[in-house]
Amino acid sequence: MSATLTTHAGDRLNQAILACSSPACVGLDPVEDRLPETISGSPLARIEAFSLGVLDAIAGHVPAVKLQSACYEAFGGEGTLVLAHVAQAARSHGLVVILDAKRGDIGISARHYATAAFDAIGADWVTASPYLGMETLEPFLQTGGGVFALVRTSNPGSDHLQSQRLEDGRTVARCVADQVAALGDQWMGASGWSSLGAVTGATKVADLGALRAAMPRQILLVPGYGAQGGRGDDVEACFHSSGLGALITASRSVIYAFESGVSWQSGVEEAAKSMSSELASIAGLRE
Amino acid sequence: MSATLTTHAGDRLNQAILACSSPACVGLDPVEDRLPETISGSPLARIEAFSLGVLDAIAGHVPAVKLQSACYEAFGGEGTLVLAHVAQAARSHGLVVILDAKRGDIGISARHYATAAFDAIGADWVTASPYLGMETLEPFLQTGGGVFALVRTSNPGSDHLQSQRLEDGRTVARCVADQVAALGDQWMGASGWSSLGAVTGATKVADLGALRAAMPRQILLVPGYGAQGGRGDDVEACFHSSGLGALITASRSVIYAFESGVSWQSGVEEAAKSMSSELASIAGLRE
Repeated sequence: MSATLTTHAGDRLNQAILACSSPACVGLDPVEDRLPETISGSPLARIEAFSLGVLDAIAGHVPAVKLQSACYEAFGGEGTLVLAHVAQAARSHGLVVILDAKRGDIGISARHYATAAFDAIGADWVTASPYLGMETLEPFLQTGGGVFALVRTSNPGSDHLQSQRLEDGRTVARCVADQVAALGDQWMGASGWSSLGAVTGATKVADLGALRAAMPRQILLVPGYGAQGGRGDDVEACFHSSGLGALITASRSVIYAFESGVSWQSGVEEAAKSMSSELASIAGLRE
Repeated sequence: MSATLTTHAGDRLNQAILACSSPACVGLDPVEDRLPETISGSPLARIEAFSLGVLDAIAGHVPAVKLQSACYEAFGGEGTLVLAHVAQAARSHGLVVILDAKRGDIGISARHYATAAFDAIGADWVTASPYLGMETLEPFLQTGGGVFALVRTSNPGSDHLQSQRLEDGRTVARCVADQVAALGDQWMGASGWSSLGAVTGATKVADLGALRAAMPRQILLVPGYGAQGGRGDDVEACFHSSGLGALITASRSVIYAFESGVSWQSGVEEAAKSMSSELASIAGLRE
């Protein structure tokens, strides 16, 4: 187990959701040409300053942040050092850190990716691809970290594989969901949820209910809320009656809220508060 | 197009294969506890020195090297800086560099990963996962780099997804292969091969011939030769009559050849030469 991961990843995430009374997660995927002009410096320095500023603005309003690894990796090793710095800052704000890295390898390479995500970067959870099978996911779980397995993603092109129907009637996504549920049973926490969760896109509304039922102990990471078109009532089916069971992510609609004209950090803060409050009601976590 | 990628990735790889008269590729996935004891220093410094030493030993004997990104990423940003240094050294030796990173994202995140692989690291080709659909692969191709899409991987657990049978009779792997072939037709080089290739594991012998037929213009990257149990006659079906069409990878059986007692670099060199020669005969590239 990693030195920094001392409790079950699902329990820690659920504690943060309950402490914040909200299942909202801000996706931090900064692209240089959309940053506020008032932030100056090199491209990477601007991304770092913006990232840290977003964390300041959202801390206390949401329980978790999802860091898009690619935005930082585009700058090579220097970018990965910044990513680790941003993750550290997020944790010091009390935010649960989800590294959206979509890694997918096996054996010792998978263990190396776990070391990279949980030790070198300092994430609590990582997203991972199931194409090589469940043995891709186990090395992450064995470190004590959390994994959101890609099951049903929000992009249009995902249908061409994930919606293919098997001869037993299930879709490919449902087949993966069943395997995730079975493996996840081995990694249960005290709160009744597994440290193996699943990514189920908010834009795939028709599938959300069935995937929720197929994965009753998986925390669902639901991207696509906000700019990608997913709506609050679309994601209602993801929540357990306790209000737990799902973390709903919005990225562009929150981090670029300043484009509407307000000072950028207050724009981000207001957008995070608004989203957090809306989702808290949908989940039943606030009256 | 990346500044460093001035010709079609398939053409460049085929030129290297023909110049070397061999379709052999050495997989460089160094793990600290297996390194020669004569290499001293910090864990990362030892991995860097070993990697550079392997490149010295294999240069001229094989056309390409496959770098396992995870081995370096485990050291965070510093590890990624070393990875870029190793890739640069490989290119200066004339080796085609395949970054085995198994990335898989969409849109601007996929473009960031392309920048990371081809610009920040300096690879010629990258491995990528198709679980999110073909839109995962296109941003890499648009930069002028090459992509080996994961189609049929060599690990045992891959069967649970890749061998699932669809209602139309195809397996999941075959469904992906058909999509790869269709997309790859848009990215053809002068040598008659696409810059979109496919990973097809040498341990999945029963599938190799059918996948070769389904993807007639895809260069196949075939891992699992050597330590994982794949044999030369198993991979024979991967080659076109020209001797082109596949790149056969061995990792541990080459880079850890020194464990048999010889001086480590000469052990690596002899193993690379031996593998290269054996595969050259199988491909029909040498008499």
